[in-house]
Amino acid sequence: MRGLLIGRYQPFHKGHLEVIKSILGEVDELIIGIGSAQTSHTLENPFTAGERMTMISAVLKGNGLADRCPYIIPINDVWNNALWVRHVRSLTPRFEVAYTGNPLAKRLFAEEGIPVRTPTMFYRFKYSGTEIRKRMLDGRQWEDLVPEEAVHVIYEIGGVERIKDISKSDRITYLEPGDVSP
Amino acid sequence: MRGLLIGRYQPFHKGHLEVIKSILGEVDELIIGIGSAQTSHTLENPFTAGERMTMISAVLKGNGLADRCPYIIPINDVWNNALWVRHVRSLTPRFEVAYTGNPLAKRLFAEEGIPVRTPTMFYRFKYSGTEIRKRMLDGRQWEDLVPEEAVHVIYEIGGVERIKDISKSDRITYLEPGDVSP
Amino acid sequence: MRGLLIGRYQPFHKGHLEVIKSILGEVDELIIGIGSAQTSHTLENPFTAGERMTMISAVLKGNGLADRCPYIIPINDVWNNALWVRHVRSLTPRFEVAYTGNPLAKRLFAEEGIPVRTPTMFYRFKYSGTEIRKRMLDGRQWEDLVPEEAVHVIYEIGGVERIKDISKSDRITYLEPGDVSP
Amino acid sequence: MRGLLIGRYQPFHKGHLEVIKSILGEVDELIIGIGSAQTSHTLENPFTAGERMTMISAVLKGNGLADRCPYIIPINDVWNNALWVRHVRSLTPRFEVAYTGNPLAKRLFAEEGIPVRTPTMFYRFKYSGTEIRKRMLDGRQWEDLVPEEAVHVIYEIGGVERIKDISKSDRITYLEPGDVSP
Amino acid sequence: MRGLLIGRYQPFHKGHLEVIKSILGEVDELIIGIGSAQTSHTLENPFTAGERMTMISAVLKGNGLADRCPYIIPINDVWNNALWVRHVRSLTPRFEVAYTGNPLAKRLFAEEGIPVRTPTMFYRFKYSGTEIRKRMLDGRQWEDLVPEEAVHVIYEIGGVERIKDISKSDRITYLEPGDVSP
Amino acid sequence: MRGLLIGRYQPFHKGHLEVIKSILGEVDELIIGIGSAQTSHTLENPFTAGERMTMISAVLKGNGLADRCPYIIPINDVWNNALWVRHVRSLTPRFEVAYTGNPLAKRLFAEEGIPVRTPTMFYRFKYSGTEIRKRMLDGRQWEDLVPEEAVHVIYEIGGVERIKDISKSDRITYLEPGDVSP
Repeated sequence: MRGLLIGRYQPFHKGHLEVIKSILGEVDELIIGIGSAQTSHTLENPFTAGERMTMISAVLKGNGLADRCPYIIPINDVWNNALWVRHVRSLTPRFEVAYTGNPLAKRLFAEEGIPVRTPTMFYRFKYSGTEIRKRMLDGRQWEDLVPEEAVHVIYEIGGVERIKDISKSDRITYLEPGDVSP
Repeated sequence: MRGLLIGRYQPFHKGHLEVIKSILGEVDELIIGIGSAQTSHTLENPFTAGERMTMISAVLKGNGLADRCPYIIPINDVWNNALWVRHVRSLTPRFEVAYTGNPLAKRLFAEEGIPVRTPTMFYRFKYSGTEIRKRMLDGRQWEDLVPEEAVHVIYEIGGVERIKDISKSDRITYLEPGDVSP
Repeated sequence: MRGLLIGRYQPFHKGHLEVIKSILGEVDELIIGIGSAQTSHTLENPFTAGERMTMISAVLKGNGLADRCPYIIPINDVWNNALWVRHVRSLTPRFEVAYTGNPLAKRLFAEEGIPVRTPTMFYRFKYSGTEIRKRMLDGRQWEDLVPEEAVHVIYEIGGVERIKDISKSDRITYLEPGDVSP
Repeated sequence: MRGLLIGRYQPFHKGHLEVIKSILGEVDELIIGIGSAQTSHTLENPFTAGERMTMISAVLKGNGLADRCPYIIPINDVWNNALWVRHVRSLTPRFEVAYTGNPLAKRLFAEEGIPVRTPTMFYRFKYSGTEIRKRMLDGRQWEDLVPEEAVHVIYEIGGVERIKDISKSDRITYLEPGDVSP
Repeated sequence: MRGLLIGRYQPFHKGHLEVIKSILGEVDELIIGIGSAQTSHTLENPFTAGERMTMISAVLKGNGLADRCPYIIPINDVWNNALWVRHVRSLTPRFEVAYTGNPLAKRLFAEEGIPVRTPTMFYRFKYSGTEIRKRMLDGRQWEDLVPEEAVHVIYEIGGVERIKDISKSDRITYLEPGDVSP
Repeated sequence: MRGLLIGRYQPFHKGHLEVIKSILGEVDELIIGIGSAQTSHTLENPFTAGERMTMISAVLKGNGLADRCPYIIPINDVWNNALWVRHVRSLTPRFEVAYTGNPLAKRLFAEEGIPVRTPTMFYRFKYSGTEIRKRMLDGRQWEDLVPEEAVHVIYEIGGVERIKDISKSDRITYLEPGDVSP
């Protein structure tokens, strides 16, 4: 049986890894879908799809899981919920079950007749993308929440510096915040 | 004379019906435009364009108004206000007057030289989409605010359950809220 | 040397003019990029790209700066930060330095290896688009914050009336706020 | 039972009407979907969705079929065949069978598990949009191929003149054909 | 009076310059709209909007026409003819007359009530983008058809080499033509 | 060193496999990019991105190459050549060299400063997507041109039947060819 797990992985952290290990107790192969693939360089979504894919691949390989997760697939938003499941299915190999904790995604899969399961909860508050991005921003220790292979990728691309740069308020400059289109 | 009434109809309610009856005292034919047609499965916009069209058609037929409102037309957003009126006009039969209570829509029609009228106010606070969606979510009585034909459509598509599902917070799951792209 | 200055210019004000004069002490030619070009008729972005271009051109001409700023270029948003700099470069003549006070834009230019400078700060709080739009809305004096050529353009297009119209709340009408797609 | 018939209706002609009458012997209600709704002002697709909707509505009313065909729905192209059926379904009331003579559409509906029927053939070569547009262009009689209600709509919008204008070659002008973006 | 001239300018040639000079006998100011702005690196459209803008600006300056043509504006395609004129108008300062030799553009402007004039024909067959691109491809002399300022821009960006590269057939490589998405 | 190979893989055939083996003599890791990912169900592009990914993954695994090609990535078209390379880079892990036989792709990579190599030619005429799709259509033997793992995928999804269905001319039906939007 093949499953699909969709997340944004901003960044990929130890909680994600635990979820994947847990799901691999239920399915033979797991497709990793990278949601909101077109989004990057924001506080909520700092990393590109390519960067996230690099992290995930390195972690899976380092944990001996690459064979069981042979597909890591960027999935752009479609801004049309009625089309979203069909969009996901057109980009992925056939899967029998979708794993997600997001209530909207669960509803959308269910309306299309696709079985949905909620991944077991692990350390929710500690291992969360929000917490990790906040620590990066505050200059605190975040590396123990992220698998070491992903830490290396984030170091290599200057990820922490990027988040800090993006967050800088407009205090000392003339143009008002939002005065430039990005 | 032909008029145009644009709304989102999430869902179509008795207030909408009263507005239509009132407008039909002023025009011969009324086009019903369904705005934000591409949006569905959100708390603000739970129903697809097809579902909204089904509700409206059933209510108009049940009230003997179908002949006077022969056009029910889904209108996608264009995310470009300068193009919006032209977009609406390309999708609709010719109309002489636009009915809307939305100040932006009024301004846009006026800048294009199209006469705009504001529909008479009926029971604003009671008959509003926001109030009805809130009642659905809270498990309260909402059916007396909606024409019975539309109630049946909402029952048939499991509309209340959909709104409740979408609204479920992410409390008991691992993935953080927003961790999935839809 | 040719520079690029990107802003939304909603509207173009005296602070923008001072920034341009200052930059022209550093570069031979300055390209003026109009960001979020597709957006108009909102409280944050009331004017179309064409209207903003008209203002800027008139002010530059009136201040003898047109020769030094021969390019005024509308730049649509791309909703994909990783593509934004390449998008800007495809629409503009070659430039050697980008001027922006926006931290995200700075980061994006830097990641693509383009030198970025922050324009000197002039009267930030007084000369800001936000302040000017607020004064227009409140019916207060705004004209002394805007170069006279731009004031004339805003008068001609009925800009203040447009902002007031857009801002009108939905109080007296039947349809709920947001009940129409624009 | 409710059926769906999709066509481009450029323009709506007597063959379309015969097909609709024939289908109405098999279903209770028929949805008319107007394909490629966003396309107009080309030789292949001269009329806007709004104009086509006006033609179809007038013909159905004139033939006493409006009650049986209560939905006439513009359907934009999505340029993604894997999403097309889901897109159609999101814009339409529920239907049990799709009518189309187009092999691609048949395949797409079939892959989604939707029953497809091919409308009986009537006068294929005579009653075809291609033939009618060619006659309009050549200044020949075309009106006997089109229901009179649709003829009136085409007259009213200057449809024949539009087709002739669009077709004019660039012979006498300086700019080369294709030298302007539309 | 202000006029608008829209073309693709692939590349800007002496015929374009003559047309502009001729139009400037009729209007006070001329807006130059660069059509299909998003297209580049094809045989029909080799140059980016930024590159075309650079050519046009240099030629206008070199011929003392920059003051009379203060606006050079990239205009993306919208793939929706019914919206095209409104799109153009949202990106440009107000104009009273549109100049174009393209029959479709003429029709679209006319349907929106905008006066259209056809520029006088100059040397159609010799001075055409098609002829110039063909000469570039064949390694023949093309420079006498293009104003010298534009020739310099084309040299600087390696324009002839680009056209030759794009045109190279797939003869000696493994992958079939069209086997890569661009 | 990491390389990138982009193709459409409609379908993945033995020639592609040979190219990959050859490239793996030059790089440590190879990213497989699936171009025109959003296209499917056409004669030129019959298979979805998900189906092509399934084929490629199965073949790589069956040939012991999965470890060396850990990334198989769908890449949507962007219809803007100036953005294409940046788009590819945002979706992929960092790569040092791009492999392509397509002259346009080569030019685009080169303009962005990315080294490009042309894969060695193998059996061009025999092993080509065009030839294979033609054989499928004609009911001839095609299986010996395609790795057996991909043959199984094509069997499983009914690929040959799909191509035949799409190709069926409109001979016996009423609606004219092209009369339906897909």
